[in-house]
Amino acid sequence: MPPRVCVIGAAGFGGALTARLLHAHPSFELAAITARSDVGRRLDDLYPHHRVPLVLEELDLDRHADVEAAVVAYPHGAAAPVVSALVEREVRVVDLSADFRLRDAAVYGEWYRDHLAPELLDGAVYGLPELYRHMLAGADLVANPGCYPTATLLALAPLARAGLIADVVIDAKSGASGAGRAATEKTHFVTVDENVSAYGVPRHRHTPEIEQELALLGADVRVTFTPHLVPLDQGELVSCYVTPTREVDPEELGQLYDDAYAEEHFIELAARPPGVRDVRESNFCRISVHVDERTGRLIVFGAIDNLWKGAASQAVQNLNLMFGLPEGEGIS
Amino acid sequence: MPPRVCVIGAAGFGGALTARLLHAHPSFELAAITARSDVGRRLDDLYPHHRVPLVLEELDLDRHADVEAAVVAYPHGAAAPVVSALVEREVRVVDLSADFRLRDAAVYGEWYRDHLAPELLDGAVYGLPELYRHMLAGADLVANPGCYPTATLLALAPLARAGLIADVVIDAKSGASGAGRAATEKTHFVTVDENVSAYGVPRHRHTPEIEQELALLGADVRVTFTPHLVPLDQGELVSCYVTPTREVDPEELGQLYDDAYAEEHFIELAARPPGVRDVRESNFCRISVHVDERTGRLIVFGAIDNLWKGAASQAVQNLNLMFGLPEGEGIS
Amino acid sequence: MPPRVCVIGAAGFGGALTARLLHAHPSFELAAITARSDVGRRLDDLYPHHRVPLVLEELDLDRHADVEAAVVAYPHGAAAPVVSALVEREVRVVDLSADFRLRDAAVYGEWYRDHLAPELLDGAVYGLPELYRHMLAGADLVANPGCYPTATLLALAPLARAGLIADVVIDAKSGASGAGRAATEKTHFVTVDENVSAYGVPRHRHTPEIEQELALLGADVRVTFTPHLVPLDQGELVSCYVTPTREVDPEELGQLYDDAYAEEHFIELAARPPGVRDVRESNFCRISVHVDERTGRLIVFGAIDNLWKGAASQAVQNLNLMFGLPEGEGIS
Amino acid sequence: MPPRVCVIGAAGFGGALTARLLHAHPSFELAAITARSDVGRRLDDLYPHHRVPLVLEELDLDRHADVEAAVVAYPHGAAAPVVSALVEREVRVVDLSADFRLRDAAVYGEWYRDHLAPELLDGAVYGLPELYRHMLAGADLVANPGCYPTATLLALAPLARAGLIADVVIDAKSGASGAGRAATEKTHFVTVDENVSAYGVPRHRHTPEIEQELALLGADVRVTFTPHLVPLDQGELVSCYVTPTREVDPEELGQLYDDAYAEEHFIELAARPPGVRDVRESNFCRISVHVDERTGRLIVFGAIDNLWKGAASQAVQNLNLMFGLPEGEGIS
Repeated sequence: MPPRVCVIGAAGFGGALTARLLHAHPSFELAAITARSDVGRRLDDLYPHHRVPLVLEELDLDRHADVEAAVVAYPHGAAAPVVSALVEREVRVVDLSADFRLRDAAVYGEWYRDHLAPELLDGAVYGLPELYRHMLAGADLVANPGCYPTATLLALAPLARAGLIADVVIDAKSGASGAGRAATEKTHFVTVDENVSAYGVPRHRHTPEIEQELALLGADVRVTFTPHLVPLDQGELVSCYVTPTREVDPEELGQLYDDAYAEEHFIELAARPPGVRDVRESNFCRISVHVDERTGRLIVFGAIDNLWKGAASQAVQNLNLMFGLPEGEGIS
Repeated sequence: MPPRVCVIGAAGFGGALTARLLHAHPSFELAAITARSDVGRRLDDLYPHHRVPLVLEELDLDRHADVEAAVVAYPHGAAAPVVSALVEREVRVVDLSADFRLRDAAVYGEWYRDHLAPELLDGAVYGLPELYRHMLAGADLVANPGCYPTATLLALAPLARAGLIADVVIDAKSGASGAGRAATEKTHFVTVDENVSAYGVPRHRHTPEIEQELALLGADVRVTFTPHLVPLDQGELVSCYVTPTREVDPEELGQLYDDAYAEEHFIELAARPPGVRDVRESNFCRISVHVDERTGRLIVFGAIDNLWKGAASQAVQNLNLMFGLPEGEGIS
Repeated sequence: MPPRVCVIGAAGFGGALTARLLHAHPSFELAAITARSDVGRRLDDLYPHHRVPLVLEELDLDRHADVEAAVVAYPHGAAAPVVSALVEREVRVVDLSADFRLRDAAVYGEWYRDHLAPELLDGAVYGLPELYRHMLAGADLVANPGCYPTATLLALAPLARAGLIADVVIDAKSGASGAGRAATEKTHFVTVDENVSAYGVPRHRHTPEIEQELALLGADVRVTFTPHLVPLDQGELVSCYVTPTREVDPEELGQLYDDAYAEEHFIELAARPPGVRDVRESNFCRISVHVDERTGRLIVFGAIDNLWKGAASQAVQNLNLMFGLPEGEGIS
Repeated sequence: MPPRVCVIGAAGFGGALTARLLHAHPSFELAAITARSDVGRRLDDLYPHHRVPLVLEELDLDRHADVEAAVVAYPHGAAAPVVSALVEREVRVVDLSADFRLRDAAVYGEWYRDHLAPELLDGAVYGLPELYRHMLAGADLVANPGCYPTATLLALAPLARAGLIADVVIDAKSGASGAGRAATEKTHFVTVDENVSAYGVPRHRHTPEIEQELALLGADVRVTFTPHLVPLDQGELVSCYVTPTREVDPEELGQLYDDAYAEEHFIELAARPPGVRDVRESNFCRISVHVDERTGRLIVFGAIDNLWKGAASQAVQNLNLMFGLPEGEGIS
């Protein structure tokens, strides 16, 4: 019998897509979907294109924890208590929130709020399979990375590991689905359409997550990270401007990435700068690397679909690894 | 009698908009419009929303040079000979191409092609009124700045003049009108829609123009400049990441820009990052300045409409100055 | 001294644009702007591109009725009491809501709600200048038409007057600004982007307004009217499929429209089907007429900017007429 | 061994998507892809998101006809000779062009050009599986329907079969991919963005195809069909306004469609008007039916993805049926 999985918080964009992927997954059974809003509505009424004929239920741990795994798609802060309750009931969890990404509760406290389940931090695995695949097989709690950290870390990991990053500026562009389903002035069509602007300046919360992981890879730097909202639905591009620790020529740079990613199915190396269309509705991260010979700077672009590789399909990729399934099952 | 002006090359986006602005201008007379394509078509057939009821004519210097001024909107290389012929006939010219922006013919040769009228370079004035207003009154040949340099230089001028720029990364985002009217795979709706990608990596031709002007302002640096195409029509945002020569706090930074731009009608200082919607179809450049206190870096955003302040309305602003008219006439 | 005008309800899209047009108007003075939300915010903070440096005030009739005229931009139902109070204080009013468009309070009651000021209906003039210009000069209360009726009536008036409409289907397409500023699931960028769908099927509230006016013009028909939401900001296209009362050939049809509209500055007759881009940010209505010779049906397209000719600039056009000013002042 | 299939004309949008679907199909082998442009380029260079690692070859019938089946994606007129050559070599063909859709060569001649292979018309099956499933199993030549006819016929078939259509107006809206890959003024981003306009007025070539099929279903009417271009990539909505031959109430109408489509996997009946987002990148047609009780008219909306159900995935659906495979294989 296939492992049974609940999606906790399936009314939002990330949770709903996770439900779709698990509903169609050959080796998992989507047991139930819950939500904090829209309880009683069918998901295929809310999101017709996902075609999930299940009703959104109110969370009831007695019923919804009677599964092998859960994907939690709550906002930060709201996630930790639910994750904690699930873990206690021996449900394996992939958490889409920020609550278990930062390894240090104090850093979390500085950027978010007091942590509500700090005792779980040590056991949580950061769910970027291309970096932590070996640790995901045995994991009971996986912190699914943020969308910006996913693209940025995949774009920079080879340089970080090689000790080549002295400094980095990350200029990111994301579609409006990244702002979530809440209807606000910021997500109104008329605000986003024919517009581009930066937000979260100069302290977006994905910054410490990026720095933590870069440091673990070997680049102990403070980064400047600036996201921009662009008028499209799904897609995210990070443009990384790296001041290297020493001169790097194009050939060496290309070789570094070929070596790092030749075996990675979901990473594509491209000669030309990637567009977010190239990865729309996929689990791929498409990367190109360039040397600005006039300044010596290295430029790395990484494109993902923020709802797929940046959230839902990466959650399924993690689940696949946790349950010993082929990594790409249900997301290829 | 109002000065008579021709627009040479009015079939493209920049030239057509210039024609519209001059057609409605209270103090100029739009004498004629010419083009290298679409000769014989009325401009209000080609661009109904501009409502210019004139026919595009083939260029005939005997007729079209019988005016006080001309705006030339030809591609680089094609512009120089026409500009040269007009200047010889004592027509005052604003040139929208790159041909007279670089003060050194050798630099032009490196980035574009052999210069076809280098003898005119010395007399050309770089037409960014906020920087060179005093020189524009007497100018007979004005090189209208590129759209990216316009936004970038206005965003960085106060820092450059204060000697505060040690290094700078410029990440720019432009709408598709910036790619011009030519129908290509790059400008096809299906290519641009729901997409973001970088282009001209790592050697976009606006780079030497930005460096030349920054150096004249006091910042002798090599810049990394990377433009991106975003799915909108008109609008351009530059995000400038400056490593300062010394620590700068937010108060000093704000004061620096207030001092520089308090009297500039077409420059708006905003507390929040500007969006390109804020300046659509206007001659304004909207700027915000921020200190990333964690890294010490300064972040400056500048938003313009690439066809207006980045081309046509700036050309009219220059014409106004050249003819002693109120600077904002016809473009406010 | 120029007449002083208040905009009551300037926080929404239509009211804010009206404020911008009046602020820049050479012959009116924008005395104050009020709102039911965002009181205390500057309008140029809420809508930077309108550049109106006034603060939104709470409505206080003692102060805000001390003007010669007011434009009321409240939702239907909320408008009537305010309009009534203003009229009582001898303020001349242009009302953007539906409250005074239907001449019969019973019809209003059927489609909206009980009418709150039915005694004013007799004196209200339907503010479509191209049809009722002669009545607007003396009007004290003008009901600004709905956006769909504006485009539809201008598209069909010549046929209606000629007694040529036996039946008509109106398929309309509108940008998202037509749905108003309220942030809802319907106006979320992710809902609108890359989407088209019908709404208000089959009983949109603009239907009785269209039928009332067609009947007055000579076409006593029941219409099928179906609006669709398309992924753009401002713009509206109506496609009208008319079954004529007798055969009409293209020449006769063209002549009919030429005769009707030759003198109308804000109506453009085009040979090809108009696009909403052609009229963006303008008071123009662009129309084309076609005969489907295979079926005998007549097809008429009408394009307007729903916020301009469909709301704010038409309100100013009406104000101009009410105060004996040139009809196009401040909106050309 | 799985049947081998070539895609002839894989450089365009429809052909390229067909190649992607067949490349990933579990029961077909994509043997080769050919094109008339871009020969020598890899398809995953031209269309990265399709991820088909094959090179576009010049058509060579000696090689490319050595397969069990071919999908031909040439423009009308160019298709017929190639289809003819393939059929002669006993290759089973699905043709995406209009060349074999009209059963009468004279009608084809009137709307397109002289037919180049009229002898094949009798044997061609119109490839709308929901209507002609029983004939597709044995077919050697299938004419894949046009995108507009697909949506329209699925929307109207139950009414046509019930003899309920006295008259019908079809107002269609399509994304820009429907205009094909050719870069022209019409497909330039700046033309399409923030725009809506009709085209092909009043004689679009899909009209006779719709009329032919409606007549075969039982509705011998002349239709008014008007397509509009809307600013999105993939998606198509038809809004059908039917004057019925007798009064129909909502219950009867709903029952009629339930009966017709209950067993159809790829047809979804919705209570609310469908949006094209609901069917994006899918083979579904989503339909809603409404009675306009004031006029007695019936309104039927049908939404498809013009490149999927309107072209490529329907071609695969047809291939599946031709080869006795499950109808939804490779397209679900």
